[in-house]
Amino acid sequence: MTKIILATRAFREEFYQQIKTIAPDYQIVVDNGQTSFEWDQVAVTIGWKHAWEKDLLTKDSHLAWVQSISAGVDTLPLDAFAQQHVLVSNGSGIHAQSITDHLLALLFMENRGIFDAIHLQQQQKWAPDAIPYAKLADKRILIVGTGQIGQQLAKSLMFFGVQPNGINTSGHAVEGFTETYPLADLFPQASKADYVINILPLTDETTHLYNQDFFDQLKSTASFYNVGRGPSVDTKALAAALKAKQFAFAALDVFEEEPLPSDDPLWSVENLLITPHISGHTPHFQNAFMEIFLTNLNSFVNDGTLNKNNIDLSKGY
Amino acid sequence: MTKIILATRAFREEFYQQIKTIAPDYQIVVDNGQTSFEWDQVAVTIGWKHAWEKDLLTKDSHLAWVQSISAGVDTLPLDAFAQQHVLVSNGSGIHAQSITDHLLALLFMENRGIFDAIHLQQQQKWAPDAIPYAKLADKRILIVGTGQIGQQLAKSLMFFGVQPNGINTSGHAVEGFTETYPLADLFPQASKADYVINILPLTDETTHLYNQDFFDQLKSTASFYNVGRGPSVDTKALAAALKAKQFAFAALDVFEEEPLPSDDPLWSVENLLITPHISGHTPHFQNAFMEIFLTNLNSFVNDGTLNKNNIDLSKGY
Repeated sequence: MTKIILATRAFREEFYQQIKTIAPDYQIVVDNGQTSFEWDQVAVTIGWKHAWEKDLLTKDSHLAWVQSISAGVDTLPLDAFAQQHVLVSNGSGIHAQSITDHLLALLFMENRGIFDAIHLQQQQKWAPDAIPYAKLADKRILIVGTGQIGQQLAKSLMFFGVQPNGINTSGHAVEGFTETYPLADLFPQASKADYVINILPLTDETTHLYNQDFFDQLKSTASFYNVGRGPSVDTKALAAALKAKQFAFAALDVFEEEPLPSDDPLWSVENLLITPHISGHTPHFQNAFMEIFLTNLNSFVNDGTLNKNNIDLSKGY
Repeated sequence: MTKIILATRAFREEFYQQIKTIAPDYQIVVDNGQTSFEWDQVAVTIGWKHAWEKDLLTKDSHLAWVQSISAGVDTLPLDAFAQQHVLVSNGSGIHAQSITDHLLALLFMENRGIFDAIHLQQQQKWAPDAIPYAKLADKRILIVGTGQIGQQLAKSLMFFGVQPNGINTSGHAVEGFTETYPLADLFPQASKADYVINILPLTDETTHLYNQDFFDQLKSTASFYNVGRGPSVDTKALAAALKAKQFAFAALDVFEEEPLPSDDPLWSVENLLITPHISGHTPHFQNAFMEIFLTNLNSFVNDGTLNKNNIDLSKGY
């Protein structure tokens, strides 16, 4: 019986050929709402839709492996997968360069006063003395999350003379970071930082991690960026802290509610840059994704394991 | 007789001490409009004011060396200096990191769609699909001017996988540039570029170098940045080309008239970022400047030569 790889999106023909070569018993089906197929033939998925759950999270399902497209798997039914012994792998690494570039854009913009320049241009005001400037290498940057994105960012910052500090669960050392601290030390470390950048996955531990108590720690000149997950931030507390000038600037790419409703008061908070979950948008996406998927497909058909980005379902990342 | 070093601005006491040690016969005088001194004692200046010309460009003047603070010396009376055998050195290198960081801010902003995100935020619109994204390494970047700033920028771009091309007068090879071309090849090279970045000094040859004929060469998707000198750009031609969407985007930090008048139509040209001559604003300025000045002061008092950033008055840079 042919097994099905059910995908949320299409890929280029060259990749279908490579899938066929590696796994001749498998057929790729793109779920565009009109395709018909037998649910019990689905062994693998690329991406995930909640609409699939009623058919794939049953005892008749032969689902064995879910390859997530994104790095975060917090929206997936991980408990159900664990119960059914479904393997899960994520897209970690695909978006590392894009998210790093997004963060570098923000850091250089702030250090060269470009946000201020844009506002002054809109007022048709020539005011060079009103525009701040600083050297990135003089800044203390705390990267919360030392995975592939954090490491790529740290490497770039080191090139510019920054000594990046990192936070991860246990505080274990990670190449590219001058110092690393455990998550328990977030508040004292954040209180010394010029920039705090969240790249953590969403778990119970990181939900509303950035709450009023956190914003209370920040220096009045500090900035906070979130390119991790929206629910890691208590958005109301952030907006209140920004309005009270408890800290200087925030840039959010992810939100508790996405899309952010058009009448949300957040849109017009001063000193807040809103980007609509774009930091991971990546050219050459198919190449980068297929490098992970085809590597995993190869080991999956050979011995039932995943060689890349295997998720520990008990931890959620 | 004590000789005077006349400065346009003050420096920290530690530097006055170092000047005294190197050149005990010299006294530093900061021209704040109230200082009194004998003009014929002035042997050296730090910076230049046009108000000094009537007293220092005379046959009684003992002026021997002008240390410019900026890298560009186009506003100085170079012909008169040449006639009086006044040595001139510039501040090349001081601003290289700041200008590089300014340009990296622009490049990453464009490649991550941050300009578009800012406009969408002002409209309270969540529209991720309307925001462009690209990878810097895929871009063809033409740096016009391969001096210290150009080299610093090229080095940073190489770190991100870009193969930067350069333009200089003769087309001689410069470390850090994948290819270099003579100024005569500007148009054909610009026609292939995604970004053209002007960092050239202002000379007769570079005045209105970026005119309508130049903008006619650009790809419709190209961007043009000017952090060199304002008069290198024919601003009317640039505004017309931007309005006609002949090319995609421009960022100007320098202008034919500075300050840009508050009613100048340029302020509201779409797809144009205006910054008020800030790209060179540099923290640690005094340290960086004094490294050049004290090196030159040392050779100047010993043998009458300048060891750093000596200007060829016949060329103007």
